Amino acid sequence: MTQKILQVPYGTRDFLPGEAKAKKIIENSLMKIFDIWGYAQVETPTLEYLDTFAVAGQASVDNFQFFDRDNRILTMRSDMTTPLARMVATRLPEASLQRLFYLSQVFRHEEAQAGRQCEFTQAGIEMMGASGASADAEVVALAIKALQETGLPNFTISMGHIKFIEGLAEEAQFTVEQTLALKRCLITHNAVELDNLLAATRVEGKIASVLRRLLFLHGGVELLQDMQGLVDNAKSRNALQNLLTIYSLCESYGVASYISFDLSLLRSFDYYTGMIFEGYTPGMGYSICGGGRYDSMMASFGRECPATGFSLGIDRIMLALKRNTSVDNKAEFAYLVAYSEGKLNEAIAAAMELRTQGVSAKLAEQALEQDEAEDALATNDCCRCLYIGK
Amino acid sequence: MTQKILQVPYGTRDFLPGEAKAKKIIENSLMKIFDIWGYAQVETPTLEYLDTFAVAGQASVDNFQFFDRDNRILTMRSDMTTPLARMVATRLPEASLQRLFYLSQVFRHEEAQAGRQCEFTQAGIEMMGASGASADAEVVALAIKALQETGLPNFTISMGHIKFIEGLAEEAQFTVEQTLALKRCLITHNAVELDNLLAATRVEGKIASVLRRLLFLHGGVELLQDMQGLVDNAKSRNALQNLLTIYSLCESYGVASYISFDLSLLRSFDYYTGMIFEGYTPGMGYSICGGGRYDSMMASFGRECPATGFSLGIDRIMLALKRNTSVDNKAEFAYLVAYSEGKLNEAIAAAMELRTQGVSAKLAEQALEQDEAEDALATNDCCRCLYIGK
Repeated sequence: MTQKILQVPYGTRDFLPGEAKAKKIIENSLMKIFDIWGYAQVETPTLEYLDTFAVAGQASVDNFQFFDRDNRILTMRSDMTTPLARMVATRLPEASLQRLFYLSQVFRHEEAQAGRQCEFTQAGIEMMGASGASADAEVVALAIKALQETGLPNFTISMGHIKFIEGLAEEAQFTVEQTLALKRCLITHNAVELDNLLAATRVEGKIASVLRRLLFLHGGVELLQDMQGLVDNAKSRNALQNLLTIYSLCESYGVASYISFDLSLLRSFDYYTGMIFEGYTPGMGYSICGGGRYDSMMASFGRECPATGFSLGIDRIMLALKRNTSVDNKAEFAYLVAYSEGKLNEAIAAAMELRTQGVSAKLAEQALEQDEAEDALATNDCCRCLYIGK
Repeated sequence: MTQKILQVPYGTRDFLPGEAKAKKIIENSLMKIFDIWGYAQVETPTLEYLDTFAVAGQASVDNFQFFDRDNRILTMRSDMTTPLARMVATRLPEASLQRLFYLSQVFRHEEAQAGRQCEFTQAGIEMMGASGASADAEVVALAIKALQETGLPNFTISMGHIKFIEGLAEEAQFTVEQTLALKRCLITHNAVELDNLLAATRVEGKIASVLRRLLFLHGGVELLQDMQGLVDNAKSRNALQNLLTIYSLCESYGVASYISFDLSLLRSFDYYTGMIFEGYTPGMGYSICGGGRYDSMMASFGRECPATGFSLGIDRIMLALKRNTSVDNKAEFAYLVAYSEGKLNEAIAAAMELRTQGVSAKLAEQALEQDEAEDALATNDCCRCLYIGK
């Protein structure tokens, strides 16, 4: 037998009973908190036309792509924000504020390693139709509360603002190409490249010193106040003020202690237009959640509409929890209903009685002696035995 | 803007808030009953190597297929039984009985129409390791109980047996080709072709009259007793006895009234080796569930192991329920927390208090007058308003 018959494709995995159970517990807690905060679940197709992702700037070589029977290119969704923007723009009423959530499989050709799979599960929310800082604060606060719900003991939220960076580039009179080069330096955290760029652009004065320190502008809320005195352009100053307002609302939500600022933060999705954030947990080299404001995407689908949201990586959270707690790798049931020869009908009636009362009950595979029944508890993942004997 | 940007691919669909909620209610009720009956949830990848489906005889032109980066053919799963067989054979302990369930997206190139989509959701169970009639009875009884849980008011289960048909073909001394032709007639319900086949094979006597009536052998349990007198081969007689035993155990489960027999029943999956069944509801041209015994498939993955199971089509059940009841197309939340100018922080605190108590609360998008707040209830899908005023 060739190995391909028995293997799963690169970057994918099975979830065995205990793993699936642990995953479901996390997913259920997230679905519950999203509902409690007033978000409604939606589903979109696993497949989309590649054009849908392309118009939102989200079609890349990392998308799984193939032709349908009419030679149109389909893609397995690589992100949930784009499909939700398409759905809201085409299917939901224009005037109303939409608070939506999803729990979905997402697919990307990536080099697989711990916490990085080609197929993974994302839970997330999108708020469409609200432009204010209160919407961004709600999104950040909900991300933190959601991470708390998963039982993750340690995590931090790093927050930045795309307009702060854009304002600096404008103040430095960067060309479009230079601005793109700056963003690349920030995404790759490349301080050497950044120095080279600054030398090449011959930027000078206060703005030069801010740009030179940009990769190291990490800190608490006091960083925002400090920076207000160091940048002169209105765009960056407004971005700092926006972050201050969001932070202050997060204090009202009681979650501000999780938040620090990283003014060089950029996410690899290029649709963000305002506040952006990522969540990290110790020992995990990738973010466990991320999001921000994206006010331009909806216009790609024919509807001008501000929007903000985030997604959580369920597989990464599971991995982090596994490192922090011991995950029991078994599903567990209350009763094994075992029976002696000729007592199957009575055993069925007993199992049905337990089930009617909401108690989980497995029926033994075949007639057993009472001592065999006790021995069978472990292999059946059951806690107790109900024996129907002669 | 081209239409492809705004459309979803052929045979796929979005689930808007009310639709997704109705779907989730059905899915949750199914997951709950599967758990109560002692089944553990598992997940498998959306993608499998086509070889995995091919070895189980399940690779067809209806599979979505494409090449991965190493030029191996991937397929989006077209069925959950094959991936679960692969998973159990390679990952779970050999000796133990496995009761597993899944809730998964499944993909097939099909002509889309009501109840027939290219992407659809299946919930189902597989019991691997049990060969007896009691396992088949449990599977049928659980299918019926699961359909009851969805709220479907009217449905019937049609049951048959692949070995009954094979026994008839052997008794008639059909060649392999003739047996395949017979099965094709039964799958397509083609009485004319069946007559032609019987004329061509010149089969005579008692077996000829049984074969001639085969497409009309529908009825209650008395049909099984009648047929015992009309077939002479052991295989068909054993199949009838097997169905009688399963039926009698279904009486113990209290579900026998849903069951009738159709001795010509064949399913388009050719992996079945014993009892097979399908569920129907009035006004729906397709089965809403189906399953049966498949004792040979596991051997394809290197492990000899009897198995039986079924799957339910969630989309078809939703469609049937929509025809029977009015489905509310909105999600619903308890409170809209609205606030006057300057009272956002107090409103946040009030919303958090409600949420802590497990009560769903949406925060108003912006400061509102009290009468505006009442008006905003409907567009926010909220039942009550909590107004934080001056």
